[in-house]
Amino acid sequence: MNQNRHAVGRAQAHFGWNHQLTPVLHVAPGDIVTFDTIDAGGGQLNRNSTVDDIGRFEFDRINPTFGPVYVDGAEPGDALEVTVLNLEIADWGWTANIPGFGLLAERFTDPALHIWKLDPVGLAPAEFKAGARVPLRPFPGIMGNALPEAGTHSVVNPRRFGGNMDTRDIGEGSRLLLPVGVPGALFSCGDGHAAQGDGEICGTAIETPMRMTLKLDLVKRANLNFPRFTTSGPVSNHFDPGGYEVCMAMGGDLMTSAKNAVSDMVDWVAATYQMADVEAYLLLSVCADLRINEIVDTPDWVVSCYLPKIVFQR
Amino acid sequence: MNQNRHAVGRAQAHFGWNHQLTPVLHVAPGDIVTFDTIDAGGGQLNRNSTVDDIGRFEFDRINPTFGPVYVDGAEPGDALEVTVLNLEIADWGWTANIPGFGLLAERFTDPALHIWKLDPVGLAPAEFKAGARVPLRPFPGIMGNALPEAGTHSVVNPRRFGGNMDTRDIGEGSRLLLPVGVPGALFSCGDGHAAQGDGEICGTAIETPMRMTLKLDLVKRANLNFPRFTTSGPVSNHFDPGGYEVCMAMGGDLMTSAKNAVSDMVDWVAATYQMADVEAYLLLSVCADLRINEIVDTPDWVVSCYLPKIVFQR
Repeated sequence: MNQNRHAVGRAQAHFGWNHQLTPVLHVAPGDIVTFDTIDAGGGQLNRNSTVDDIGRFEFDRINPTFGPVYVDGAEPGDALEVTVLNLEIADWGWTANIPGFGLLAERFTDPALHIWKLDPVGLAPAEFKAGARVPLRPFPGIMGNALPEAGTHSVVNPRRFGGNMDTRDIGEGSRLLLPVGVPGALFSCGDGHAAQGDGEICGTAIETPMRMTLKLDLVKRANLNFPRFTTSGPVSNHFDPGGYEVCMAMGGDLMTSAKNAVSDMVDWVAATYQMADVEAYLLLSVCADLRINEIVDTPDWVVSCYLPKIVFQR
Repeated sequence: MNQNRHAVGRAQAHFGWNHQLTPVLHVAPGDIVTFDTIDAGGGQLNRNSTVDDIGRFEFDRINPTFGPVYVDGAEPGDALEVTVLNLEIADWGWTANIPGFGLLAERFTDPALHIWKLDPVGLAPAEFKAGARVPLRPFPGIMGNALPEAGTHSVVNPRRFGGNMDTRDIGEGSRLLLPVGVPGALFSCGDGHAAQGDGEICGTAIETPMRMTLKLDLVKRANLNFPRFTTSGPVSNHFDPGGYEVCMAMGGDLMTSAKNAVSDMVDWVAATYQMADVEAYLLLSVCADLRINEIVDTPDWVVSCYLPKIVFQR
């Protein structure tokens, strides 16, 4: 089978989902596309940025999304099969607390920014503060198809057609199935993340420009309710060695418990490793995982925040 | 340091939490206690039970809890430190759908039961149906301290003093910190699980009699909001090889998304491996994990159900 190769460039970005956008590319099922994407800040930050730049953020420039790509033969009810072939990160990235965003937005009301130096070749763990180092596992934060509904729709929230799913296990080697909402699917991607924990607690990951090489194929009449994916490798082996420190929370509301578990973990990390609370919050966003340990012992469920101890081991 | 050893027997059970129960044992901090526990069914099921026995369940006999143990010097505000030294399972176990319980109680209204043959020595993966085999990782479903509030309180739901936490990562080698609510802590445990996924989706795990050897120690004035634990080893390495099949769900309510992700996974497993929907539901409860992939892309979060593919690999 002949797989054509295509490229989508940095200028071919849109903001929000709109199925009336003109496709930047038409491809056949099975074709391979390389998307050269800038980071979710849309070029407003660079390796020399300071926290003052967060205060100057223009929100209509965040989350640029690259595409859309029209896939021949894609029809509503089909699934677009996206195979993540290759991801190349830049040599820098950023993590920020943006006031109003994040799981603990009420607690952390001031802007904060950390600029990371990244190793795009060897993917060595990235240095934070207080000796912490974060293992890298790149993935696209945004992969999605256009919505059938008319008009422009926010790119911030994910939907059943995908979008800003921020799901760290959809990295290299994964195979993602996205419901198709309109003819041609109109697939776009972006929001490169060099590392993130499950939850993306503070609202940002290690945000970085990323070259994403994806194979786009079709599963006809898949009739999925939501996206699904397959990952061939262990999903947490970069975090696992050394085990975990875990803060639990019990209660009848999963969101409240998630906040309680994370808040306790912020306190613990800040006290144990002598860093500011907000620094602990940024760090947890890029490496700690939220799990639902039990959801059946009525009326109280358990949500826990898992900190991989390898982050603090040398 | 002299560590005294103690034993709590099968007859030393209570139902529900009540701080006026007479302790079955007084121990010093650092002492080791072996609890010989029967399963959460309280002896109402055995290796020859059938689904009809679920219909005859007496609910005042479920979740027998063994203790309470009075720990000298424990005071409210302290944490009881429980180190899980050794867990021995029986050679059989059970998993059931009990009408009215479970994440998908509305969908699965009929009782169902699977009796497992277990390998208590080698912990070989346990056979299900359709060629499925579930890796074992034993843990106590219940570990908790008595509540300060008077009266008898249900053992079904966990609280900040612990209890029926059903958290599968608190296995051998883990160190659990439980807030102390009353003088002496009044610790009890039970509800042996040979295997469970994060969520305990159908409401039961692989329920089994278990001999639990625990070290009970104190951290004075820990002032914890909720339990926390440390686990020294990888938490999912028994599930990881072979990767995962993952069903996602997006939406503004985490509970609804958890139900949607699990429901889609039940359908997929039943169709792919030719088993009844309810069989897929029981299987997922003992091996599939619920994760919160993102909880910040307002107003929609992602909850996913992870099925470890090793379950279907030979």
